[in-house]
Amino acid sequence: MPSARTRPDPHDPHDPHDSHDSHGRGLAAPHAWAVREGPLDPERLAQVESLFTLSNGRCGVRGSLEEGDPHGTPGTYLSGAFELWPLTYPEYSYGYPTVQERLVPVLDPTRVELLVAGEPLDVRTGELTEHERVLDLRSGTLHRHLRWTSPAGHRVVVGSQRLVPLERPGLVALEYTVRADGAPVDVEVRSAVLASEHLHEAVADTGSGAEHHGGRLRQRTDGSGLAVAAHVEHDVLAPATADVRSHALPDRVVTTVRTRLEAGELLRLRKVVSLGWAPQFERDDLGTRLAGLLADGVRTGWEGLVREQRAVLDDFWAHADVEVDGDDDLQQAARFALFHVFQAAAQGTDRGIPAKGLTGTGYDGHTFWDTEVFVLPVLNHVWPQAAAEALRWRHHMLPAARERARELGLAGASFPWRTITGRESSGYWPAGTAAVHLGADVADAAVRHLHATGDEELAREALVDLVVETARTWVVLGREDSDGRFHVDGVTGPDEYSALVDDNAYTNLMAQANLRSAVELTKRFPAQAEALGVDDAELAEFTRLADAVHLPRDPATGVPAQDGGARQRKRWDFAGTRPDQYPLADSFPYFSLYRRQVVKQADLVLALYLRPEAFTWEEKRDAFEHAEGVTVRDSSLSAAVQAVVAAEVGHLGLAAEYVHEAAFVDLHDLRGKTADGLHIASLAGAWLALVAGYGGMRDGGGELSFAPRLPDGLSGLRFRTRHRGSCLEVRVHGDRADYRLLDGGPVHLRHHGREFTIARDEPVTLPVPSLDPEVVARPRPEQPAHRGPRRRR
Amino acid sequence: MPSARTRPDPHDPHDPHDSHDSHGRGLAAPHAWAVREGPLDPERLAQVESLFTLSNGRCGVRGSLEEGDPHGTPGTYLSGAFELWPLTYPEYSYGYPTVQERLVPVLDPTRVELLVAGEPLDVRTGELTEHERVLDLRSGTLHRHLRWTSPAGHRVVVGSQRLVPLERPGLVALEYTVRADGAPVDVEVRSAVLASEHLHEAVADTGSGAEHHGGRLRQRTDGSGLAVAAHVEHDVLAPATADVRSHALPDRVVTTVRTRLEAGELLRLRKVVSLGWAPQFERDDLGTRLAGLLADGVRTGWEGLVREQRAVLDDFWAHADVEVDGDDDLQQAARFALFHVFQAAAQGTDRGIPAKGLTGTGYDGHTFWDTEVFVLPVLNHVWPQAAAEALRWRHHMLPAARERARELGLAGASFPWRTITGRESSGYWPAGTAAVHLGADVADAAVRHLHATGDEELAREALVDLVVETARTWVVLGREDSDGRFHVDGVTGPDEYSALVDDNAYTNLMAQANLRSAVELTKRFPAQAEALGVDDAELAEFTRLADAVHLPRDPATGVPAQDGGARQRKRWDFAGTRPDQYPLADSFPYFSLYRRQVVKQADLVLALYLRPEAFTWEEKRDAFEHAEGVTVRDSSLSAAVQAVVAAEVGHLGLAAEYVHEAAFVDLHDLRGKTADGLHIASLAGAWLALVAGYGGMRDGGGELSFAPRLPDGLSGLRFRTRHRGSCLEVRVHGDRADYRLLDGGPVHLRHHGREFTIARDEPVTLPVPSLDPEVVARPRPEQPAHRGPRRRR
Repeated sequence: MPSARTRPDPHDPHDPHDSHDSHGRGLAAPHAWAVREGPLDPERLAQVESLFTLSNGRCGVRGSLEEGDPHGTPGTYLSGAFELWPLTYPEYSYGYPTVQERLVPVLDPTRVELLVAGEPLDVRTGELTEHERVLDLRSGTLHRHLRWTSPAGHRVVVGSQRLVPLERPGLVALEYTVRADGAPVDVEVRSAVLASEHLHEAVADTGSGAEHHGGRLRQRTDGSGLAVAAHVEHDVLAPATADVRSHALPDRVVTTVRTRLEAGELLRLRKVVSLGWAPQFERDDLGTRLAGLLADGVRTGWEGLVREQRAVLDDFWAHADVEVDGDDDLQQAARFALFHVFQAAAQGTDRGIPAKGLTGTGYDGHTFWDTEVFVLPVLNHVWPQAAAEALRWRHHMLPAARERARELGLAGASFPWRTITGRESSGYWPAGTAAVHLGADVADAAVRHLHATGDEELAREALVDLVVETARTWVVLGREDSDGRFHVDGVTGPDEYSALVDDNAYTNLMAQANLRSAVELTKRFPAQAEALGVDDAELAEFTRLADAVHLPRDPATGVPAQDGGARQRKRWDFAGTRPDQYPLADSFPYFSLYRRQVVKQADLVLALYLRPEAFTWEEKRDAFEHAEGVTVRDSSLSAAVQAVVAAEVGHLGLAAEYVHEAAFVDLHDLRGKTADGLHIASLAGAWLALVAGYGGMRDGGGELSFAPRLPDGLSGLRFRTRHRGSCLEVRVHGDRADYRLLDGGPVHLRHHGREFTIARDEPVTLPVPSLDPEVVARPRPEQPAHRGPRRRR
Repeated sequence: MPSARTRPDPHDPHDPHDSHDSHGRGLAAPHAWAVREGPLDPERLAQVESLFTLSNGRCGVRGSLEEGDPHGTPGTYLSGAFELWPLTYPEYSYGYPTVQERLVPVLDPTRVELLVAGEPLDVRTGELTEHERVLDLRSGTLHRHLRWTSPAGHRVVVGSQRLVPLERPGLVALEYTVRADGAPVDVEVRSAVLASEHLHEAVADTGSGAEHHGGRLRQRTDGSGLAVAAHVEHDVLAPATADVRSHALPDRVVTTVRTRLEAGELLRLRKVVSLGWAPQFERDDLGTRLAGLLADGVRTGWEGLVREQRAVLDDFWAHADVEVDGDDDLQQAARFALFHVFQAAAQGTDRGIPAKGLTGTGYDGHTFWDTEVFVLPVLNHVWPQAAAEALRWRHHMLPAARERARELGLAGASFPWRTITGRESSGYWPAGTAAVHLGADVADAAVRHLHATGDEELAREALVDLVVETARTWVVLGREDSDGRFHVDGVTGPDEYSALVDDNAYTNLMAQANLRSAVELTKRFPAQAEALGVDDAELAEFTRLADAVHLPRDPATGVPAQDGGARQRKRWDFAGTRPDQYPLADSFPYFSLYRRQVVKQADLVLALYLRPEAFTWEEKRDAFEHAEGVTVRDSSLSAAVQAVVAAEVGHLGLAAEYVHEAAFVDLHDLRGKTADGLHIASLAGAWLALVAGYGGMRDGGGELSFAPRLPDGLSGLRFRTRHRGSCLEVRVHGDRADYRLLDGGPVHLRHHGREFTIARDEPVTLPVPSLDPEVVARPRPEQPAHRGPRRRR
């Protein structure tokens, strides 16, 4: 927790009030619109690199120091710049993938080395009297300021700013300033683009024309056959006597500025880099493209790029901002989370949104199901065009998914568990291929997107295909019993501590929705249905199977169960498990975990959220409370969902703790894995936890409904959300909720079940019903020992 | 099928009558006591190498040609001479083994090259007018005879004989003769011991002393730290002018004989080789040991070794022979099967009996559960000392199994699924670690051995430990439900086309027997119980759990089911599966197989056989008939068990076909894998199919019972079996069965439920009751399309 202090000026992220008010975890006290690093912590370099990543979804640049050392795990990534690795198995079986795609770090555009009277700037030498870095969530820039005295006693003030333009894929811009502090000094600045150790055969040159200060560098991948290149140009503001020159070395292109600075005099270098990849055989086109991109960037200039970036973010926040009254930490975390979700998705890419965005190589840069289940439902309401692009990406991999379905003996399309281009890259099928819910998750995201946006053009282009081809898998995957009930045997649900179970409730209910959506969409888009070869018999089968879907229940109590055998299994020995034995999969074999009642992450509880109409309120409460007792949250894909359902069933205090766990996952490194990259789905989950949890928002079936209710300790919540071209704002404060249309046409809504409509200049204020005293009195559910909601550290 | 011919002399395996009467599969027509190769088939060299392997359980020598080329996959193996390989996984998880043991081919003692007037003997050149190899099942020798004209027109007759002494571990002997055929010729014979390409750093020398014709060669393994060596000595009978010398090359020691042979004159070379391994640091001791072993062998001489070998086999056949009247092919196959089972086990080793014996590197030389379930129950009755040694081997690995149980969070001991020294070498846990029945299988083998032999000394030394430590695993693995029923969830039974199921019937019933045996044995051997820390509370728990074991049933019919969900699963689409898609695991993912009703190998049916008292006869019949419809026998561990149970439930015609499939697995290469080594468990199964199937022998609970009944087409069956130091003979012919004691004290028996006793000179003849006409009339169960019993090819 931050120490007591005066509240900072919320409009100035560089407000000196808290610049030395160090936060326990190395971050400064929370600012509403910025994240500021406290004193440089050598132990946390990699974690802070992740937090300070700038990205636009096509290019991600980790927040490493310009001078290169000290460093954590620096890296710049391009969406789709991947390498192939062989996958080998001790006992290979049919259908196992034999190569894996992995995101690789590409050329480094950030390097700027500084020599002060011949001595290299290194924060570990000399005397660092000031050092601060600030990620500004409104300007989309990363700022750095430092004051350093070299070992020989020369003093400089150095500043940098960088940005990855949200609307210019492939561009990176960096401003670097050096000022002589109190006395004249000779300085040399070497600004470079560096080759990647993970790529091959660097070819560097400085280009032609004496007016340029820059050059270009190209490399290639080995197995995946890609050319990866960067072009760079510098704008230098320096004393007239400065010597500026560019040269190429085998592994870099460097622009060097040598000059003497008088006391207080400034040297400023502005660097623009264009980065990209293409198939090797298109490497010449790539060069042309990067040259054009760079020329555009140079023409726009640093100030222009800064202005553009701010404008994009102003637009974003105008439709997406969430305000939390009464919890400054949460306020900051909520905006930090949304900022990174936006960054991960902003530039529609044709490569999906990886689990870590482009903030690190965790999970090898793969995209999983959580993009559809956690990220797209947020984007649908705050930046729907990004969700559309992510769905187009899924659609692009449909041919590969159809081929994979054939290989597996299924019908329709079987999307890969983890992938970059569409190729299955999972090497453990019980938690990969067997997790067939992924198909239904994709369909669910497609349908939610259509409901949220009304984008019929995208439906014709992609969404109907996605929904129908995934629906077709269930016909083969499932089984009708002698009573006509429909079951799905031997599959793995979201919970990775059980596998190959019969009748996973989440899978069954998502399959049901998938089948029904296929029927609805083919009726609504008959041309697409015809192109897909859907006939009446197939639709009748979809309907029959959907209506017959079996929901497993605890035989003793009748409460919905995670799967057919879930409630009968032996309970995990939580009392006998030490805190250091978590995550359990690091200390126990899957063999033991699968046989017990122990849940890694929201599974049935996720179904309670995504298929709310399939349960009564009491069923939700009972199922949630039981799940709490066996859920250990060894996954980051859990706390947000638990928050949402806890809020729905009246456990608001518990919901508040899960909101925090979701929102602070990276700012407080709650999983110890932030160094590998941010948990984008958990960050998206923070928005879900606030909006679907406290706000009670549900968007199933094309209707938007709310059931806001705040926990103790929060005095107000305001959020904005888009719906079919309109944008509305919901303010919850105490016992009232205000609904206001910000733009677009009237929107029909529900508030705690009551229907109403808001229109321009016709806000609606409605009372928030108080919780039933019996609900309030219900004891807070217990979690397994040591596995209660994680506190900020 | 063999073509029509006169019946050969059963006493002379070299009977010329059928020497050119080639069998369709490259083997000559069946001889009762020999297997003879027809014309050399270049396509079947590897398969015949497996069939003609000589072994004593410590050393195995594949039946390759002495001259080295052409060859299939030649190899000489020493039990326990293994190499270590890293196991890598795309997604490693807790408890996965990271190294694997693999049997490696050691030094080759068989090489003899012949130069005829300077031209090397190669059966692919010149003219091969005669070529025959014969495996003699009574002498335990492999004979070869060939008549060859070199490309230059020189004619020779060459013979070889080899043996691997059944009672001299580490010794190999080979006699090689060359005769000038019709005209004089210069010959040069080079007899060598060759280094293995799979081993490192060969060190060769010829030893000291002019009287020797031989030398020694040593190598080492890389990861497993073993020294592997061979010593060789030759006895040469040659014209007085012959030049005999030995020399060492970097990769071999060679003894060369050069001489001129007059027409009809003979050159004979007798080679004795001792082979062995030891830890690297004991390599000097190894040399001393091998020198001694060799000296003994040389002293005994070729004729002495041949006599010894015959004596051992006479003793073996006197107690183990099976005679089948009316099917010459089956007669040969039954003896071939028993011979190889004996060879695989004859020399009690401290390394277990691998799935392929020492006949090839299939399954990397690993020992699995089938040793205990298929091989030891045969050895108990035909060569019990070998079964005792195999059980001692399991006992030696108890410390490793206890450690593995701790690692997996289990109690007691968890034996590895596949291993050489006791280290888990399985790289796919759902069909390895999860196949926990292995523990109960070991216990079952231990108890059957005690019942069959009455060996209380071994019980005190090893068997009680094995039974109690395996029993302890069930307490942790299982679960008591609210009704007090005991279940084992999430495990894999014998059927490898289902995995991680709840309540596998075989596992549950074997666990029940294991628990009960632990109670019985600890009461009978209290000192061992005390040493194991068994107390009354633990025994009470064993008893309670055993009594509560749940037997799953088909909910619709009440018939026992393979597992809790087996009968509910969707049936595999057998009609839609092409013959070339078998084995299914080569054409479909485990994901699809596990979710369907399709059985790779006897599982519930194995339980019907091993736990006969747990079912009524009608339950057995119904469960067997259902299993027939879904069992595809993609494993060799199935036909024999199906034969046994088919016979018990009255499907004698079907039983006869399964007997054939089990017995001919290798002679007819029914699985296409004989080249990798013989299927020792299936060969043992051939004995079980005859004795437990047609003979109806059961040996559970310490009682020996029979229920003989022959299928149509078989006029008689005679087998011998040992029981607690006695040996009896059972003759079944038509409607009578004769029981006769061959040696030992009186034995109490049952015949079709009727109790009786046989004693010396007091044979008993009893009528075989005819089958109930209703049973006879019952339709033969259908197998999946294309998966009926395999016919000899």
